[in-house]
Amino acid sequence: MKLNDLLNQESEWLKETGPNSDIVISSRIRLARNLERLSFSHWADEKEQQEVLNQVESAINTSNYLKGSLILRMRDLSNIDKQFLVERHLISREHAAEPDHKGVVISDREIVSIMINEEDHLRFQVLQSGFNLQEAKSLIDRIESELEPHLNFAFSSNWGYLTACPTNVGTGMRASVMLHLPALVMTSQITKVLQAIAKLSLTTRGLFGEGTEARGNFFQISNQISLGRLEVELIDNIERVIRQVIEYEQNARNNLLTHNRELIEDRVWRAYGILKGVRIISSNETIDLLSSMRLGVDMGILKDIGRGIVNELFILTQPAHLQKIEGKALTADKRDVKRAELIRKRLNI
Amino acid sequence: MKLNDLLNQESEWLKETGPNSDIVISSRIRLARNLERLSFSHWADEKEQQEVLNQVESAINTSNYLKGSLILRMRDLSNIDKQFLVERHLISREHAAEPDHKGVVISDREIVSIMINEEDHLRFQVLQSGFNLQEAKSLIDRIESELEPHLNFAFSSNWGYLTACPTNVGTGMRASVMLHLPALVMTSQITKVLQAIAKLSLTTRGLFGEGTEARGNFFQISNQISLGRLEVELIDNIERVIRQVIEYEQNARNNLLTHNRELIEDRVWRAYGILKGVRIISSNETIDLLSSMRLGVDMGILKDIGRGIVNELFILTQPAHLQKIEGKALTADKRDVKRAELIRKRLNI
Repeated sequence: MKLNDLLNQESEWLKETGPNSDIVISSRIRLARNLERLSFSHWADEKEQQEVLNQVESAINTSNYLKGSLILRMRDLSNIDKQFLVERHLISREHAAEPDHKGVVISDREIVSIMINEEDHLRFQVLQSGFNLQEAKSLIDRIESELEPHLNFAFSSNWGYLTACPTNVGTGMRASVMLHLPALVMTSQITKVLQAIAKLSLTTRGLFGEGTEARGNFFQISNQISLGRLEVELIDNIERVIRQVIEYEQNARNNLLTHNRELIEDRVWRAYGILKGVRIISSNETIDLLSSMRLGVDMGILKDIGRGIVNELFILTQPAHLQKIEGKALTADKRDVKRAELIRKRLNI
Repeated sequence: MKLNDLLNQESEWLKETGPNSDIVISSRIRLARNLERLSFSHWADEKEQQEVLNQVESAINTSNYLKGSLILRMRDLSNIDKQFLVERHLISREHAAEPDHKGVVISDREIVSIMINEEDHLRFQVLQSGFNLQEAKSLIDRIESELEPHLNFAFSSNWGYLTACPTNVGTGMRASVMLHLPALVMTSQITKVLQAIAKLSLTTRGLFGEGTEARGNFFQISNQISLGRLEVELIDNIERVIRQVIEYEQNARNNLLTHNRELIEDRVWRAYGILKGVRIISSNETIDLLSSMRLGVDMGILKDIGRGIVNELFILTQPAHLQKIEGKALTADKRDVKRAELIRKRLNI
């Protein structure tokens, strides 16, 4: 597999075949692990960082699941390629920004990815479609147990797994769920819901994690604490909360359909109409309009359109994706025109 | 003919078959006339106003052109019907607001209308499609000469025709042309053009005359002066100016097509996409979006759509028209939904 092959494949988590996928986009579990006797990434010298890369890369080839994965070193990648991986949620923005001695491992169908020499030596992530933390958890357990015999993870019997940042010490686990909550936003209930979530030791972020805004009514909810709790407790807690948020969103959608059908249909059909005709469009407007279209698909208003096409557009209309499709760097103005072309082509079939 | 028959007929001026009808919507000439020995409308008592109504109405039946016209007394009309006539540009807003002892005569295909007891005893108007003041002028001359033998118009050999407001004394004539100038607006040249027009003793108004804003890029340009000039000079002057404005608009459109094709296509296709999908829409947004659609039709961007359907929508989506179509009074909220329904029905054929 090569990096460019990703462009033509649909990520597993985007298939929207998972549970509750009318509201939950994806479920993600990541583990932070570090190698014994080597300094944490920020303190490690070049030799130590190389050592981490080498150890992890050779461990990958011993794993049944990960064998044959795409193994990339960040400094070999162009800026567009790095941005491309960020847009596919395979690496963090930080990992793209400082490529030296960093690497990434990407499994078949992009279900598993491992950042090497990010904040921690290893950041494993499993990304699943829909509301599916359990499956993500069992897969990440399998990956970890396949790698553990070949890598000595730094572990303290008092603290658990040791990590560069104290917030990750213990389980080193973060579970997060990406939700699409347009009806809670439309009915102005979202602030109340997010405040309640914050009180339950959970954090809310935007589409691309920390510091990004909740564009297109997408909210990523994850646990804040990883120390002093069992993994299963952490997952139970977030699952319980997410189930409630799903119910709130469902109720808000039903209420809108019953009492304000025209309002919601107006929003959906306008968005669809604009997208079918558009000649110039920014990323942000695209996300907002696709969010409305997706709501229309999920609520049965846009009957002839599948979720697949909407999801595909969310991914492909991003700046680096557009540039990879075109095979060259494009200015923002040109991207706005190419983005519009791509959207029209996919919607006017 | 009855008032309700108008609802199902297309006004002649809307047919857009006249010269330059990609830029000029309509040409209008109106004459102000008063009857000798009867006080001007604002000073006339009830008996005098009745006398005017009677004299004019019986003169109508002697005119070959106007015979069989619809003759209405304003106080017999409902508020919706009065508003309906305003929306069709057959009476002024003032004429609708104070219906007592006022009347209106509407000829076949709405080419000629005569307001009785408006500011002047008679206000004749001829409305033609496109840039066609000459034809409007010869028709209004014919109407006047058919009526004059039966009505004694107040005339002074020093001043010409006498009118209630000194600005109309002399010829009593106002020539006006309704232009659609979206490209001059988009390229921010419109202010300069309107300033130049103002220096040439011409006035610019919006869609519904005095005091209305230039919604939807429609501008009505007319002569300010009617005293001390021959009618033919007044028409020559306005025609010369309008020809120039048409040229400016044409150049602006060509420039946009050459240098900024996506910008203009984006605007047109977005408007069309929204209108095809809309579920709730105000009058003002409708006018703005139809203006963009019309530009698309006029510039050959929307190839499969005729100007007719756009013009029809401009008229039918107005508040009183919607209520007459529905056969009952509707709140503004209900109108916004019915308007959207009507637009979708006409555009999704």
